[in-house]
Amino acid sequence: MKIDAVIGIDIGGTFTKYAVIDLLANVLAEGSMPTDAADTLDEYLDALSKSLKAVINKVADKADIKGIGIGAPCGNYKSGSIEYAVNLKWTQGKVVPVVELLQKAFSLPVAITNDANAAALGEMIYGGAKGMKDFILITLGTGLGSGLVTNGELLYGHDGFAGEIGHVRAHANGRVCGCGRRGCLETYVSAPGIVRTVFELLAEYNTPSELRRYAFNDLTSEIIYQAATRNDYIALKAFEETGKILGIKLADAVAHTAPEAIFLFGGLAKAGDYILKPTRESFENNLLKNYQGKIPIQISSLPEGNVAVLGASALIWNEINKK
Amino acid sequence: MKIDAVIGIDIGGTFTKYAVIDLLANVLAEGSMPTDAADTLDEYLDALSKSLKAVINKVADKADIKGIGIGAPCGNYKSGSIEYAVNLKWTQGKVVPVVELLQKAFSLPVAITNDANAAALGEMIYGGAKGMKDFILITLGTGLGSGLVTNGELLYGHDGFAGEIGHVRAHANGRVCGCGRRGCLETYVSAPGIVRTVFELLAEYNTPSELRRYAFNDLTSEIIYQAATRNDYIALKAFEETGKILGIKLADAVAHTAPEAIFLFGGLAKAGDYILKPTRESFENNLLKNYQGKIPIQISSLPEGNVAVLGASALIWNEINKK
Repeated sequence: MKIDAVIGIDIGGTFTKYAVIDLLANVLAEGSMPTDAADTLDEYLDALSKSLKAVINKVADKADIKGIGIGAPCGNYKSGSIEYAVNLKWTQGKVVPVVELLQKAFSLPVAITNDANAAALGEMIYGGAKGMKDFILITLGTGLGSGLVTNGELLYGHDGFAGEIGHVRAHANGRVCGCGRRGCLETYVSAPGIVRTVFELLAEYNTPSELRRYAFNDLTSEIIYQAATRNDYIALKAFEETGKILGIKLADAVAHTAPEAIFLFGGLAKAGDYILKPTRESFENNLLKNYQGKIPIQISSLPEGNVAVLGASALIWNEINKK
Repeated sequence: MKIDAVIGIDIGGTFTKYAVIDLLANVLAEGSMPTDAADTLDEYLDALSKSLKAVINKVADKADIKGIGIGAPCGNYKSGSIEYAVNLKWTQGKVVPVVELLQKAFSLPVAITNDANAAALGEMIYGGAKGMKDFILITLGTGLGSGLVTNGELLYGHDGFAGEIGHVRAHANGRVCGCGRRGCLETYVSAPGIVRTVFELLAEYNTPSELRRYAFNDLTSEIIYQAATRNDYIALKAFEETGKILGIKLADAVAHTAPEAIFLFGGLAKAGDYILKPTRESFENNLLKNYQGKIPIQISSLPEGNVAVLGASALIWNEINKK
């Protein structure tokens, strides 16, 4: 007898990963293809369709495909489109109705959302948020993304773009952000954010630091983490300041949605206690009294490599369950 | 034939107001009683039950009472209790299971929430948010309260206390707040908040101002508003600064929940354009680009005197409709 499964797709700037996944998060088959080889939407969809058909064939004898879920930058659940994604050249920065196009091609239910929302769903269906109805997942990568789950559902808001905690204002006239404004949280709390913080600290202090050997272009959050494990003062201080800002803004987020728990995911979260400890401390110091000691912040329990794909599969499982 | 109606109750620190209200927000009968005359829970409930029975009798020939909705400080929808309300002495600062007690007394569906949430429901069922599924209502009174509606439902969060935007951090080491922390938004943006701002401005500037005649204890937001209508520099600047801070934090709130519109209600909101104009300007300047120009901030359209009672009735209509 065949088992029910779905396809999860993670459209990243460089690669598109996809997998056939069952309800227990078992990956029955998987693959990847370049995202950036295609110049036009038609080219990209052609390549994607071929890849998906190949992976569906691979499991044809054991799995019955029920739907397709997609996580993508600027993916809008409500419109079913990728909207103004500057990092996906085949979208030409326009609105691309991906859901409609794949529904036609595969005659299956299709849904899309952004990567952080997909990760939040992944956490809810397969990860540490299993059984929770109100939680926040924060992705700490190139930017700071957030997925807010309230009352058991992703919070999409009026236009489908709720959950942009990376763009709350951390400092009135702070660092220049990719969004065109200044002082957004993600200019401090993200992989590039902590690199910027290190450079500020290197300028402020005279303390010796192995990080003084790196040019801005060469420094990564991974290198900062490695330095921290060797007790490098600047690296430790950078994590401390990053956690401090994150804790304040997570306390503000609690004042909005009152979650049961907060999960951190992505590159920076791999630094474990180096980021977690100062974040928790600042978080508790900034929480309203009735929340203090009640809301754990923890590292996501999802397997790093597959989370976006798992999240995308969770999205479509969720849609199918609604029916 | 009798029409369907509910009872809305607004438990304030000084008075408890109540009214019998139909689905079109018509007040069929109303009344009020002192909140602070009772020293114990039993005394308060006795008085309340008598008052409610009297008002029910008054409409007995024309209305069929379907339920009771309550708006109260620290009213928790999820637990059905008033929790740790320091301003209601008969609660003795404890958890009081009001819903259970009134259900027993009246054999009717009963629901409770806090005042800002009740006002948000009122706005949704009777006011400017009719038909909206995602909006924010801000009450600007003694404090800053907020009711967040997402996907057509009040956002309660895990513990029932979501929507505490008055306690997001406006300044790291800012003004002392009643909650025991510093820098909370409501220490700047509320009726007492603008009084504090005026006193800072009077200290900072040498400009003549009619507000220099007032002691701190005598100054009110109403007096500041009147001075603003006479072009008093300090009064105008106080509204400007208040709106500036509010606009920044409303932009942050949009980054969380992406509402369709924001409504302002309460004492300070009566200042109209004096508060609205600087708030809107700062809001637009601080919004992510994709939200700019799309989210109106407007003064609540609900009648001031009855809003809390209307909101409480909206709460119970909403519960009844769920069934």
